[in-house]
Amino acid sequence: MTRKPKPIKSELAWSTPDRIVVRGKDLPNEILGHLNLGDMAFLVILGRVPNEKESKLFNAIAVTLVEHGVTPSAIAARMTYLGAPESPQAAVAAGLLGLGSVFVGSTEGVARMLSENQDIEKMKRVPGLGHPIHKPVDPRTKRLFEIARETGFYGKYCKRMEEIGKERNLVVNATGAIGAIACELGIDWRAVRGIGVMARAIGLVGHILEESKSPMALELWERAEDEASAHLRPKK
Amino acid sequence: MTRKPKPIKSELAWSTPDRIVVRGKDLPNEILGHLNLGDMAFLVILGRVPNEKESKLFNAIAVTLVEHGVTPSAIAARMTYLGAPESPQAAVAAGLLGLGSVFVGSTEGVARMLSENQDIEKMKRVPGLGHPIHKPVDPRTKRLFEIARETGFYGKYCKRMEEIGKERNLVVNATGAIGAIACELGIDWRAVRGIGVMARAIGLVGHILEESKSPMALELWERAEDEASAHLRPKK
Amino acid sequence: MTRKPKPIKSELAWSTPDRIVVRGKDLPNEILGHLNLGDMAFLVILGRVPNEKESKLFNAIAVTLVEHGVTPSAIAARMTYLGAPESPQAAVAAGLLGLGSVFVGSTEGVARMLSENQDIEKMKRVPGLGHPIHKPVDPRTKRLFEIARETGFYGKYCKRMEEIGKERNLVVNATGAIGAIACELGIDWRAVRGIGVMARAIGLVGHILEESKSPMALELWERAEDEASAHLRPKK
Amino acid sequence: MTRKPKPIKSELAWSTPDRIVVRGKDLPNEILGHLNLGDMAFLVILGRVPNEKESKLFNAIAVTLVEHGVTPSAIAARMTYLGAPESPQAAVAAGLLGLGSVFVGSTEGVARMLSENQDIEKMKRVPGLGHPIHKPVDPRTKRLFEIARETGFYGKYCKRMEEIGKERNLVVNATGAIGAIACELGIDWRAVRGIGVMARAIGLVGHILEESKSPMALELWERAEDEASAHLRPKK
Repeated sequence: MTRKPKPIKSELAWSTPDRIVVRGKDLPNEILGHLNLGDMAFLVILGRVPNEKESKLFNAIAVTLVEHGVTPSAIAARMTYLGAPESPQAAVAAGLLGLGSVFVGSTEGVARMLSENQDIEKMKRVPGLGHPIHKPVDPRTKRLFEIARETGFYGKYCKRMEEIGKERNLVVNATGAIGAIACELGIDWRAVRGIGVMARAIGLVGHILEESKSPMALELWERAEDEASAHLRPKK
Repeated sequence: MTRKPKPIKSELAWSTPDRIVVRGKDLPNEILGHLNLGDMAFLVILGRVPNEKESKLFNAIAVTLVEHGVTPSAIAARMTYLGAPESPQAAVAAGLLGLGSVFVGSTEGVARMLSENQDIEKMKRVPGLGHPIHKPVDPRTKRLFEIARETGFYGKYCKRMEEIGKERNLVVNATGAIGAIACELGIDWRAVRGIGVMARAIGLVGHILEESKSPMALELWERAEDEASAHLRPKK
Repeated sequence: MTRKPKPIKSELAWSTPDRIVVRGKDLPNEILGHLNLGDMAFLVILGRVPNEKESKLFNAIAVTLVEHGVTPSAIAARMTYLGAPESPQAAVAAGLLGLGSVFVGSTEGVARMLSENQDIEKMKRVPGLGHPIHKPVDPRTKRLFEIARETGFYGKYCKRMEEIGKERNLVVNATGAIGAIACELGIDWRAVRGIGVMARAIGLVGHILEESKSPMALELWERAEDEASAHLRPKK
Repeated sequence: MTRKPKPIKSELAWSTPDRIVVRGKDLPNEILGHLNLGDMAFLVILGRVPNEKESKLFNAIAVTLVEHGVTPSAIAARMTYLGAPESPQAAVAAGLLGLGSVFVGSTEGVARMLSENQDIEKMKRVPGLGHPIHKPVDPRTKRLFEIARETGFYGKYCKRMEEIGKERNLVVNATGAIGAIACELGIDWRAVRGIGVMARAIGLVGHILEESKSPMALELWERAEDEASAHLRPKK
């Protein structure tokens, strides 16, 4: 084969024996002790260090997505840990795999809808609206928009999201607020799902720790197996 | 079947229509705007909010593990994204799956060794020591121990780790420093790998964003496939 | 909460102390020694045991998808194994995660297009057509359609696929043939990607075994890391 | 950097425009229509085509591991599908991730114990023994050893496994039989977990199909979430 290789390159990091540089910043001296984990995520997504206000707002939206109780994602992680306790990273990964179009994907849908100024008249289901429990107000939305105002980032996207909620007569849920705020922060909608993925990885570590001390996966399995096949087993 | 169900419970979170409580803290009012993402991870792992010094030190060790350039983990994520760009969460998950015994696992090994006060005389390979590039000093270690001193957490575990490095005449690498500092912060060694997993999830989001704009996976694949089977293909 | 549980049930399997029944068949006595692994997959997907001709044809399409050399999927699996050799199941899983819309997904696209009789005039890119290497004929397609004819399953879907290839002046590739044959066998298009996923799991086990004896992941990593960040490192 | 690349190579497959060769066999002409999916797996693991007896026995052990009802692995897959129905491959992968040391890993433990002739006197827990439901006989074991006898492969490893069961006064379960038979077939113990992984991938495709038509994940989630946090919610 006479295939000619094309060059590959990455702008993310480089190192020499005495230096480690991430996104153009010296890791030991300009990052460690200066940036918190949310700021680092901001740097990873936007390529620059956030200012104080951006830091506060971005950390708030990321923190919102960390822990949602015993979700499908947490159950998947706990079931995986039950079979492979030696691989906690696999349990976290199993939990992340369900962060698709149905749940966390809605933050992405909101950010896309707002940034592309999509016509909601034509949409059957508008992302970011409605909640089975938190109504008539999602307390996270209220607080996140409050922080957006405090930091000077409550702008056209947040307004538009609130208008959409009124038009449809549905609560703007946390994913609606997060999608709108991500637009205000200048985050590409394609990157918004990533915020949920990184945040949930943190929450899943918590679920696995709890599962290791106070397990529920075995009990959930036994109940489900018993009930699911009961109609097939011969009656005595 | 007459199996009697056992109760299940989780202490992590609960909600009612107007409240959401995570680890005993009101999410909108006590967490959002108050805790950064690293503090939230601390809360998830240790069950309590860190004070300012703990926050600075914990955020520093977590931030250290976010981005390490084009690692095997990043390559796995990018290869997955190439085939399933509609599932960025799957690409992140694929990247996390390799955080096993060989790489990130060494932070866990260090924390275990130090907290259980294992006899290193008998160990063939001591975790947390040596680095192919960063020698005679790993600049991250130097800086992390500096922050540990500043925050008052440089104690017996950090000292012991540095002694072990001297005994073995090897550099204490970043995973050695992180394992020791995790012990100083009172983190169970079983939870230490989780810090690396959550941090790396953030870094992987960055790699997938870069791959979406400036790809390398296709080129790496074509080169590898070509070369790997060249010896099998008939010569013309 | 006064939520009333809804019943759950599964038709897949049940057992008592002396019996194990899968899809209505006694596993030890009606399945083991009688069905091969492809027949078992047919039973899993279609809910019934294949006859001899169905068995031959279904096994052929599944076998086609097992091994494709050093693909992105194989590279992701090998990279994962490098970091977590204690979890070979995680390496297989990492490899499967890339079987999305770009590669194996095209079998699904073909089956959907044919079974829903979609109008190809309007399609920019028709799934199942074209191949970078195998032209003007994909030898797998030729052989698969030959087996379809031998077993009496070469019907309207296979014919239509071949017509589509002629209309577009492109080779019908293996995924095109497999999608068409799946339709002839009465497999729902929603299940077609599953054939590729199960088949590739087998191939990935082979890659991990090879990686354990004759590794390439470490070398691929070092090359990629070196090259990708070379432009960032200071020149001496 | 003056790093000199080392060569990489793979023996698994190669192709030219008109040929595709897997493990030295012409895929279209020597494999398709000739080997069933289990034979292909045998070729992948052992590097050669099985004879008729090997084919029967190997297919039987692989088929045994395909479907075990609503297991933790199936629940993880179904939970993942609930959140990301657009990525069925991710649901299969999530299900595979739990095939670690606790469940499927025991086939590997058995094969290792027998092939390395480990001293069971010293083992607290012998792999491959005991079953919560199938006693005093596991009907799969009985049948698998019967097929091993029929095909002439019932030898020293199967005998030894049955002896161990008698010594410990425990039933030899299916994983015990499979581990022993894998040894008889000359399969390296390191490859034995892979048989379970590939087989279970097939079973998981079945669970996802069932979930798509007759779901249980949503109900299991709601029940678990409700119950797990009930003790935390304020009483009205």
